[in-house]
Order: sequence, then structure tokens, then C-alpha cells
Amino acid sequence: MKIRVAVNGYGNLGRGVISALSLCPDMELVCVFTRRDPQSIPVSVPVVSAANAPAWADKVDVCILCGGSATDLPEQGPAFARWFSTIDSFDTHARIPEYFAAMDAALKASGHVGIISVGWDPGLFSVNRMMSTAILPEGENYTFWGRGVSQGHSDAIRRIPGVRRAVQYTVPVPAAVEAVRAGKCPALSTREKHTRECWVVLEDGADAAAVEQAIVTMPNYFADYDTTVHFIDEETFLRDHTAMPHGGFVHRTGKTADGGTQRIDYALALDSNPSFTGSVLVAYARAAAKLAAAGQTGARTVFDIAPAWLSPKSGEELRATLL
Amino acid sequence: MKIRVAVNGYGNLGRGVISALSLCPDMELVCVFTRRDPQSIPVSVPVVSAANAPAWADKVDVCILCGGSATDLPEQGPAFARWFSTIDSFDTHARIPEYFAAMDAALKASGHVGIISVGWDPGLFSVNRMMSTAILPEGENYTFWGRGVSQGHSDAIRRIPGVRRAVQYTVPVPAAVEAVRAGKCPALSTREKHTRECWVVLEDGADAAAVEQAIVTMPNYFADYDTTVHFIDEETFLRDHTAMPHGGFVHRTGKTADGGTQRIDYALALDSNPSFTGSVLVAYARAAAKLAAAGQTGARTVFDIAPAWLSPKSGEELRATLL
Repeated sequence: MKIRVAVNGYGNLGRGVISALSLCPDMELVCVFTRRDPQSIPVSVPVVSAANAPAWADKVDVCILCGGSATDLPEQGPAFARWFSTIDSFDTHARIPEYFAAMDAALKASGHVGIISVGWDPGLFSVNRMMSTAILPEGENYTFWGRGVSQGHSDAIRRIPGVRRAVQYTVPVPAAVEAVRAGKCPALSTREKHTRECWVVLEDGADAAAVEQAIVTMPNYFADYDTTVHFIDEETFLRDHTAMPHGGFVHRTGKTADGGTQRIDYALALDSNPSFTGSVLVAYARAAAKLAAAGQTGARTVFDIAPAWLSPKSGEELRATLL
Repeated sequence: MKIRVAVNGYGNLGRGVISALSLCPDMELVCVFTRRDPQSIPVSVPVVSAANAPAWADKVDVCILCGGSATDLPEQGPAFARWFSTIDSFDTHARIPEYFAAMDAALKASGHVGIISVGWDPGLFSVNRMMSTAILPEGENYTFWGRGVSQGHSDAIRRIPGVRRAVQYTVPVPAAVEAVRAGKCPALSTREKHTRECWVVLEDGADAAAVEQAIVTMPNYFADYDTTVHFIDEETFLRDHTAMPHGGFVHRTGKTADGGTQRIDYALALDSNPSFTGSVLVAYARAAAKLAAAGQTGARTVFDIAPAWLSPKSGEELRATLL
């Protein structure tokens, strides 16, 4: 019997999850929950108003929550945990302990299981940071992001008056990457790790110099970085800057007791961030469905999931082919 | 209470394990088992003849088996599993299912737990192959080894008459590495993936041309590769070729259903193969001790071990600091 999956939310991530499910013959999409007009969502399964989600409790093995971390998940996570085993990509690092506690309580109360903060960072990058640190207890961890689109920074630019369209790429500084990967354990400031590259289409008559100044001095988002701003026309923007590539790497340089330097490097290069993140969520949804079938309840993170749970293959098959 | 660890075997790997334990304050080496004269082993804990290992059954939480896969582990694994929870680095890929079955039976019969085939390949590379394949079900896996010393190939050269000392480095072919990492999914023959580089000190009066011919034509070991042989004097050998560096990488290029190319790359660069492998074994020994304390029995592989089990930190601490 296939694992029955519901998806809550039909944004970029929701579409990435649905696309990833199409490559998993052991799983099936059974419905999409939405706050929008269900008629507006072009999928071949029932589209259900989120308010009616509880009626699907018995028809779904795991619900993948595709809302954002700022306002959606803190509310939707515990609400959906009353009816479903869940997967989400909660990514506000500082609030993870609090969100974990809320999800753990809700999931235990309802007898479901959920895996929070799934994706690549947090997610696969976390697994690598954690495993590398356990294996090489003395050393330094580094995480670099990009070259890739930051939605948060792109949104911040779009809120500036006079901006019609904008995209922001986070770009690792080559010299920093080289020093880290060479095992030199450099001390790096925020500015030394990444630069920010902005591509902007202005509204007619907007003041380019004022927009550029507003971007590069914006606190939290740009002020601590070397930021370049490029003004382009709409045609160029639509041709060259609508994909959502991303990537980055987690690196640990450790010292073993013999004095040797040991380096572990985990890197992603992604044509499409939402398609890849959706693929990660689907693999962990498989794990959640197995945990639920085994009677487990409460909240988990990627740290608690044995690799084999992600795979449709049996332990025997995995040992024979991939060990 | 610290996790009490025994080490069986005092070769390169056993010394790497003991060195790694010195960086883990939650674990302690309690004894070393050996087939040699116990007097010959310079450690600060009891050195015990392997024949007397059963007397230590109640004083050890996990025994790390540091023998070789060809003849040691198939015999020592099931024997030690009668008395101890175990970790080993069994690496004869084709015989893993058979070894797993033997260990599983022995460990279940004695009420212990063991993790087989731990290290970096099999081991960390396997985890990455497996997870990447589960996340991106359509794609190609590649594994490259080196630049690093192959003990098996070095041994094979040393068995040739006239050879006094020898070391063999396995070297990835740069063009192949570049094509793989660019996401081109090339079809690569054995010869196109790696070259083999040999550094040899001859016995006095040995025939260099004959030795070189014996190396490059050796079936299984060298005949399928482009092999270069360098003859050097003993002083140069001892100065430049006694370290045991290694490394390599596992790469998956996958396609998501939107047509995007997504690349995952896990790379190791190791000054000392036995020190790093020892560090991996120690982290998994921590996991085995936790599994044993939880009452689990039987054989496991790295696929069955949740990342959190490798760490001395609590789930709460891991979520707050590494997620």
C-alpha cells in the first residue's frame, strides 16, 4: 500500500513537493490543503480548504506543511499536528527549541509523529555539521550559502519604493572558500564570507541612486555585507533571473590526536531550491510514515532519523547495493 | 559513567582508535586485546591475550574490532560477538550480506548489538550514497578514491621479488572528476576514473624493468589501470612516503521532475587514513553503547544509526546548537 501524502500550501515549496512525489512510486499525493480558492489550484487530486483538513485525518499518512516559518508554521504546525503526522521546513534557527516543544506536545497529545526543520539548511547541512563534529570533536565548522537566490533578501528589496522587480544572490567569497577548504581554519567576519548581488528593475521614473543607497545601507539585510546593485530592464530580468538556483557547503576541518588535519566537505549545487527542498521533504515524509506505522509519537528532527528510514528499499537491499 | 571501550588489535587502525578515544571525555579505553606478546604493546591500560577476552565481558561496553576483512573479521567478529557488543570495519563489499548474517546471529544469540562495516567506505560514503539516492531517486552515483595510499595495492607490490619497500597511491583522473562534478553524468571505465602511482625501493641488484613489468601487468590490481612506477632510494621513501593520506568523494547528480539538475557532493581529505577511520569507529562505538544500553540486540550498519546517536550531546543541545 502506498504512503498517502497530503500537502498543505501550494507555493513554490508545495509545488516542489508535489513534483518530487511524482518520482516516488511508493508514495501518492492524496490531497492539497489551501487557504486560497481551491478552484485556483491546478492539480489532479482533491483541493481542500485548510479549514476542512480534519475530515482527511483518516485518509492521510503524513501531511507535508509547506508554509513559511515567520507566521505560517508556528500556527499551522501545532494545528495540523492534532490530525496528522507531519513534516515541515521550519527554519528560524533561534526559535527551533520553542517550535520543537510546541510540536512535540501537540503530536504526543494526538498520537502522531512529526519531523521538524527538514530541508537542506536546516536539514542535510545540519546532519553533516552534527556528524562531522561527533567524528572530529576538535575542529572548526563552516557553512557557506550560494551562489543562490535568497527569498528574504529579494523580498526586502522589493519593499523599497521605486522597485518593480528584484532578486538577490548570496555569493561566497572565493578567497574565504579557498582558505576554508585548504584546512586553514580562518577567522572570518560576516563581510569576509559572502557578498550580496542584487538585480533590480525600477518603476518608471524611480531614482536609481536612492534605491541603491536604500539597499546597501539596509540594516540586518545588507549593511554588514559588500553589496553590488545592478539595474536591468524587465525583459532581461524575466529572461535571466526567474530561476531559483541555490547551494552551498558545510565544511569541517578537524585535528586528530596524531596532529593530522582531516577535512569533511558536504556541498550542494541546485538548479532549483524548491524542487530540491521538496525532494528532501518527501524522503523524510517516507521516514515519518514508517515511524508512525511503528507506533512512534512526538517531534523529531533530522538528527533522530536513521538513513535507512528515508529509502523505499529494504535493509537487505540497501546493504547489498549501497553499503 | 564513561563508555568502557576495548580495542582488539594493535595495528594502524587499532592505534588510530586509541588516539581518537583520547579526544572523547565520555569514553575510556579499558583494555587492548592482542594475538601478539602483550608485553610488546605500549599502552597504559591492561593488554590482554585475545584468548582471555571473555574474562572482560562484564567490564566492557563495546569492543572495537580492528582486524582485517580478509581473514581476521570473518572469524573474530562472530567470536567476539559472543561476549561483547561490537564495532568493525568489514570492507569486503561483496561479502557484506554474508558477514551481516553471521554477526546478526551471533549477536542475537548473546544478547549484544554490533555495527558492521563502519569507516568511510564502507561507512560515511555509504550513508551519503544512500541518502542522496533516497532524496534524488533519478540520477547517477559516482565514488572516487584518493589521492591516497591503498594498503592492498602496496602489499601486492611488496610481494614482487626484488622489491624492498613500496607504496601505491590511487589518484582520481582530473578530467573525470571535473565532468562528474559539473553534473555531466559521464559513462566512465575503470581506467578513466583513477590512475595508480607506485613508489618503489628495490633490493640491491634487482631488475627494475622486470619489477615494473610485474606491477603494471598484475591482474585485478593494476592491469586495468594506467599505472606509473617510480624507483626511489630508501632515504627518499622514508622521508616522503610513510604517511597514510587518503580521501575521495561521493557524488550524485540527480534530476528533479521539473528537469532541474541537483548535485550532492561529499568529500574527504585526510592526512591520516587510520586516524580518521579510528575517529569514525569511535563515534559509532558511542552509538553502539547507547543501543546496547537501550536493550537492542543484533547486527546493524551505518544505515540504521540515527545521527544523534553518534554524539555525546543531548537532543536538546544538538537542536539548539547544530540544527
